[in-house]
Amino acid sequence: MPQYTAPVRDVRFVLDQVIGLERYSNLPGFENATPDMVNAILEEGGKFMAEVLFPLNRTGDEQGCTRHADGRVTTPKGFPEAYKAYAAAGWTTLGAPAEFGGQGLPHVLNIALEEFQATANQAFAMYPGLAGAAVSAILVAGSDTQKRTFLPKMIAGEWAGTMNLTEPHCGTDLGLIRTRAEPQADGSYKVTGTKIFISGGDQDLTENIVHLVLAKTPGAPDSTKGISLFIVPKYLVNDDGSLGSKNAVSCGAIEHKMGIRGSATCVMNYDGATGYLVGEENKGLAGMFVMMNIARLGVGVQGLAQAEGAYQNAVQYAKDRRQGRSLTGAKDANEKADTLFVHPDIRRMLMEAKAFTEGMRALCLWGGIQSDLAHKAATEDERQLADDLLSLLTPVIKGYGTDKGYDVCTNMQQVFGGHGYVEEWGMSQYVRDARIAMIYEGANGIQALDLVGRKLPAHGGRGVQAFFSIVTQECAAAKANPATASIAAALEAGLGDLQAATMWLMANGMKDPNNAGAGSVAYMHIMGLVAIGLMWLRMAVAADKALQNGTSDTNFMKAKLVTARFYAERMLPDTLSLRRKLEAGAETLMELPVEAF
Amino acid sequence: MPQYTAPVRDVRFVLDQVIGLERYSNLPGFENATPDMVNAILEEGGKFMAEVLFPLNRTGDEQGCTRHADGRVTTPKGFPEAYKAYAAAGWTTLGAPAEFGGQGLPHVLNIALEEFQATANQAFAMYPGLAGAAVSAILVAGSDTQKRTFLPKMIAGEWAGTMNLTEPHCGTDLGLIRTRAEPQADGSYKVTGTKIFISGGDQDLTENIVHLVLAKTPGAPDSTKGISLFIVPKYLVNDDGSLGSKNAVSCGAIEHKMGIRGSATCVMNYDGATGYLVGEENKGLAGMFVMMNIARLGVGVQGLAQAEGAYQNAVQYAKDRRQGRSLTGAKDANEKADTLFVHPDIRRMLMEAKAFTEGMRALCLWGGIQSDLAHKAATEDERQLADDLLSLLTPVIKGYGTDKGYDVCTNMQQVFGGHGYVEEWGMSQYVRDARIAMIYEGANGIQALDLVGRKLPAHGGRGVQAFFSIVTQECAAAKANPATASIAAALEAGLGDLQAATMWLMANGMKDPNNAGAGSVAYMHIMGLVAIGLMWLRMAVAADKALQNGTSDTNFMKAKLVTARFYAERMLPDTLSLRRKLEAGAETLMELPVEAF
Repeated sequence: MPQYTAPVRDVRFVLDQVIGLERYSNLPGFENATPDMVNAILEEGGKFMAEVLFPLNRTGDEQGCTRHADGRVTTPKGFPEAYKAYAAAGWTTLGAPAEFGGQGLPHVLNIALEEFQATANQAFAMYPGLAGAAVSAILVAGSDTQKRTFLPKMIAGEWAGTMNLTEPHCGTDLGLIRTRAEPQADGSYKVTGTKIFISGGDQDLTENIVHLVLAKTPGAPDSTKGISLFIVPKYLVNDDGSLGSKNAVSCGAIEHKMGIRGSATCVMNYDGATGYLVGEENKGLAGMFVMMNIARLGVGVQGLAQAEGAYQNAVQYAKDRRQGRSLTGAKDANEKADTLFVHPDIRRMLMEAKAFTEGMRALCLWGGIQSDLAHKAATEDERQLADDLLSLLTPVIKGYGTDKGYDVCTNMQQVFGGHGYVEEWGMSQYVRDARIAMIYEGANGIQALDLVGRKLPAHGGRGVQAFFSIVTQECAAAKANPATASIAAALEAGLGDLQAATMWLMANGMKDPNNAGAGSVAYMHIMGLVAIGLMWLRMAVAADKALQNGTSDTNFMKAKLVTARFYAERMLPDTLSLRRKLEAGAETLMELPVEAF
Repeated sequence: MPQYTAPVRDVRFVLDQVIGLERYSNLPGFENATPDMVNAILEEGGKFMAEVLFPLNRTGDEQGCTRHADGRVTTPKGFPEAYKAYAAAGWTTLGAPAEFGGQGLPHVLNIALEEFQATANQAFAMYPGLAGAAVSAILVAGSDTQKRTFLPKMIAGEWAGTMNLTEPHCGTDLGLIRTRAEPQADGSYKVTGTKIFISGGDQDLTENIVHLVLAKTPGAPDSTKGISLFIVPKYLVNDDGSLGSKNAVSCGAIEHKMGIRGSATCVMNYDGATGYLVGEENKGLAGMFVMMNIARLGVGVQGLAQAEGAYQNAVQYAKDRRQGRSLTGAKDANEKADTLFVHPDIRRMLMEAKAFTEGMRALCLWGGIQSDLAHKAATEDERQLADDLLSLLTPVIKGYGTDKGYDVCTNMQQVFGGHGYVEEWGMSQYVRDARIAMIYEGANGIQALDLVGRKLPAHGGRGVQAFFSIVTQECAAAKANPATASIAAALEAGLGDLQAATMWLMANGMKDPNNAGAGSVAYMHIMGLVAIGLMWLRMAVAADKALQNGTSDTNFMKAKLVTARFYAERMLPDTLSLRRKLEAGAETLMELPVEAF
């Protein structure tokens, strides 16, 4: 009963009229991203995800994955065929370098496709998503031989990839890792240990799986400074590239989870498995961080994606379902009741979802283009600015985006009343699937600590100062135009709260680091509100310009202006309370002894 | 792996030191509620729920209910035996009138027990809960014969009861009901129609089920003014009280739900079933509202209950799990990592849970005592005041209490990181079970409309004015004492936002009713924050008094004062943003045409 159509029109608006993709056409990789090409990719991609992946979303949730007695893991019915079609259509190759068989297109297009596939089927999207992250890590940290051996097959979608960090006693705190890697005479290692929560640890989609595994070599320091990164393939690879014998790695169990049940979350046992060191010994976290940063942006996109799916279905339900009458008198007098759309509180929930998804989409695509610019912009200044801004906002996109995405899913489920609670309607699944995004790739509290403890002070606050001055300048410009003045004024007020909160953290976090920790999530949310506020200001400016220029798309552009005002009046004010809470400091949090709980 | 201990100590604090149960000992029913008796009931009840119901909570979720080919419904393994033990222990009789076999104890004790049983096993608690609500409706609206025929068996727990309102096309809007009741020569009716979402519509716990069904008689007005209430027993009852033939009512299907899976949610088919009119024709909603108001308070208690269960488990996990180091330096240098308790953001989530559950518990018990006073207080003035306050705050307890209870469950799941997402740890179930409470017994948006549209203006605003003056007076008194001054000041500020929001609604809701609808949920949340704030002020005053009087329970009382301050500094400030949103009015919500969504 649930439905999905990829929001291609909205992505086009952001790429064409807000980001202005054409101005980057001189950059490497962008030369092929002509408007026609971009349009074709979005249209085809949206169609594929909606027609091939989405029909497997509910059945995948119902069936889950199965670990058989012999240790083999099978995915839900239809997943293997869909995966083959996905790889055949080239969706694994989009942003990958041409040297290893990729299409070398800008990352910003990947972001758009990641949204479509995560909305259509987040559990399925995990398989190519993790493989893509593993490709990125090998590209950055792998040797030439490793690249030649693994990347072409992984980029072609013939082999998948995984990230192996967590162990039963060790999640966030990677210094506690116990998995051991013993060097062998031939330069390889024997890897032994247990990893948990490994997405796609085993599956029946690809002929091989390239595990990236964090482990400790003998005598390594007993901290995060003693962690090395290894490639451990499920099947060893012969010199001619063919598959050799099965490696000593196996799936010991799969988890029964609240959601993303079509994704096989595995306990992986490494029993002296052959592994190959990636990069330098004891510097494994650097390579893993490459994966994590890409994955964090991708998880932020999941927050958007689930909210978008839930929103589309709630809109349809609100159009179809008739209950009660408008508070201002019957709207459809010839029917026994009006549609849900007449009720202000239903509207409030739908408008919040609309304002969040469209604003968050713009922010994610903005993150994609920064990622491109950080590597490819013409000048060092431009590259540095893009890198500073993306580093600053990656934890915000992940942390705020998934917190708010989950809230939106919960509200969209609420639109359905009792039917929202029944699995048949699909709304429970949006909530259950959205829930994981707040947890994995660093729980949102960790994102907030990364923001406050690492990203804010980086390079003497260079990134956050750049962000402040961008918002300040764009507000000043937009205030001169009556169509955008009130939106700019609200954003300026939000920025005021963000700056005050920043000052408070600087003044009080030094005195007592717990003050920074106690305010970190509030701070991340304030910054998320302001960052999406900036996107809404940009969209309002672009919509107003289009209207001034006599666009034929009048209704679309007018809706952008109304939604921007809604965001300014009804969502941005959250900064007020958040700032007040942050400024309350750590005292009452930390005062009680543990026995008082 | 999950665990539960009933918070008897905390209930005792509220009953003894905040409410002061003893001062009501002259009221009917309270004479038996001596401190020893109350203590025995709480201790025994807490023990029973934790030892008998709680072990069936996870298995009930895993197994769910089953509808067999012959239409019979069976509950999860162990439920029938537990139900028999529950009835045998007298838990169905607590607050019921002695005339029909009940113990006639104050309703406030029911509230405490309802919390314990809903935390232990919400799905199980639905069966006696709905039966109790049906008892209340028959007590108020039933004839003497109906009372004699049904109440003794229902109160003894031998028969259960259900509420049948919803139909496939009609949830909130009861005017759309299609179920028909045709009068018969013998004074009975033949009831025909389909009802959905019927909790306990069929089960294997009791020998009979007394369905209370809303239906329309021939020629009845085509609105809520044409609805009548009927008793439709699963088995007809002979004149001697023995069970007769099976009535023409059957379960057509059970729903597959996000949570409370041990509760059988049935599609019920009435095929000319024999029914008996309760009260007057076309006045069925009045009787049903008696059930609904009691049930709404009970659903608010569920919001508390799930939050409490999730909190207890998160506290234990935070004590056991070691990850990372305190920001202020290692706390357990001899361990490889500190416990989660050292991290400010974990503390923030746990303190919010503690402040919500303890404050909400006080508010629910306050609701229980108002319910007693509304019926039993000595003077008409006292009865009216209690009724006014309870009417006003029932939608707040239900709506705010379940919204916030769900948030707390989500946060407690977050404390577990990835383990929170795995069903084995039980945290997913708290979230999934808590989710329904925001929907049933009137979705929370409906509670907000009831508050703003019906309860605020009732009797010229008598109830809300009384509430304002109580908060004002208690703040004034508490400001004189340094131990409670800052809490009182914060509450006063919250009250200021509530009063301003009330004025805004009065001024702008008249002009455009959509303004009232658009701000209704924000208003409900502001009032919830202030109502729980009042409870925290009272608890702080009581704790300070106990400390002044040299209590031996120093740590408990000190923790109350710290938690009250936390609530004042870290939770009450939400009123700021909520008020701002409310004051933005309906314009941007209602402006877009439906096609723009």
